[in-house]
Amino acid sequence: MTDSETAPERRVDFYWDIGSTNSYFAFRLLPAVLERTGAMVGMHPFNLGYVFRLHNYALTDEPRAKMANRKRDLMRWAERYELPFRMPDGFPIKTSRALRGAIAMREWGLEAEYMDAIFSAYWERNDASIADYPGLRPLVETLGIDGAEFEARSESAACKQALIDSTNAGLERGVFGAPTFVVGNEIFWGKDRLDFVEYELTR
Amino acid sequence: MTDSETAPERRVDFYWDIGSTNSYFAFRLLPAVLERTGAMVGMHPFNLGYVFRLHNYALTDEPRAKMANRKRDLMRWAERYELPFRMPDGFPIKTSRALRGAIAMREWGLEAEYMDAIFSAYWERNDASIADYPGLRPLVETLGIDGAEFEARSESAACKQALIDSTNAGLERGVFGAPTFVVGNEIFWGKDRLDFVEYELTR
Repeated sequence: MTDSETAPERRVDFYWDIGSTNSYFAFRLLPAVLERTGAMVGMHPFNLGYVFRLHNYALTDEPRAKMANRKRDLMRWAERYELPFRMPDGFPIKTSRALRGAIAMREWGLEAEYMDAIFSAYWERNDASIADYPGLRPLVETLGIDGAEFEARSESAACKQALIDSTNAGLERGVFGAPTFVVGNEIFWGKDRLDFVEYELTR
Repeated sequence: MTDSETAPERRVDFYWDIGSTNSYFAFRLLPAVLERTGAMVGMHPFNLGYVFRLHNYALTDEPRAKMANRKRDLMRWAERYELPFRMPDGFPIKTSRALRGAIAMREWGLEAEYMDAIFSAYWERNDASIADYPGLRPLVETLGIDGAEFEARSESAACKQALIDSTNAGLERGVFGAPTFVVGNEIFWGKDRLDFVEYELTR
């Protein structure tokens, strides 16, 4: 047997929310890590609004200088990695529909394409309409999916439960924010830990 | 004139607190950046206890999973950069005396050596005695400074005011935590932004 045949499967689980600025950067920077490591990825919508309420956390509680630095940090990341990021005028948004949409699209084998479409719309094209179906429907139609069928599936009881389960499964595993990467038992939080994720995937 | 003669001075200001775990990593990882960039560094004691009180922040307000991840993250950094880091049993400690000591040692030209000694004692050798003079005196004596003279200088009104001024000057500049690096008008917060600091110093 060759080394590659005996090597355990390399897998990273990615917990994300479309409303999380840093999830945008993580999603855009992850493919290069996957390519270099040959790792599989599992996508996990994680309802950050629910988690923040659970933890009594509010972004605006932070000192003004910290908030200002957060924005500057984002722009530095955009510049450095040459990403067409911009802060949307509509921020924050309610993200549960867009997150359930990812679960719906998974059944059509288009989860990654859908994520690319919504991250691009919201964080690159200032399009906050993806918070609701009038914005989501045309977007999934460009992926060849009927908008009404997408909406019906996203609004189904099964899909609503699937998002709750996805978030709770993350919480039970020790995930507390987004973006988070899990490799084995190691939990990496933040867009700024992808080098550690890559190290973990290759050791 | 050559390029090096026309280039503006490269300088990074480092805001630190001995009680800040991430300041330890920043202090240990900074020399390689300075060596590669040829930049000057200015050391700035920053009284984080005072700043946290000002911002009504308490570390223990954070979710348990986030606290656990913070510890794991530190150990991963220690492993990756091969640093003999360990969480001290005495944590947190009151840091104002040790911070004033750095200002006192600056006048003897031994600020960096003193910082190395206290970071090593507290974060590598589990020695929380550096919070007060009985622990600090023998440490400065190994650097050739009389312990009693060090203590008198650290306790002087001028030195007390200098720490207040150092912290306030940071706050006025937009520094809100430690470790923080400032290059020109760019403020970088965290042990995980040294790659951005290096990029800023070389652009």
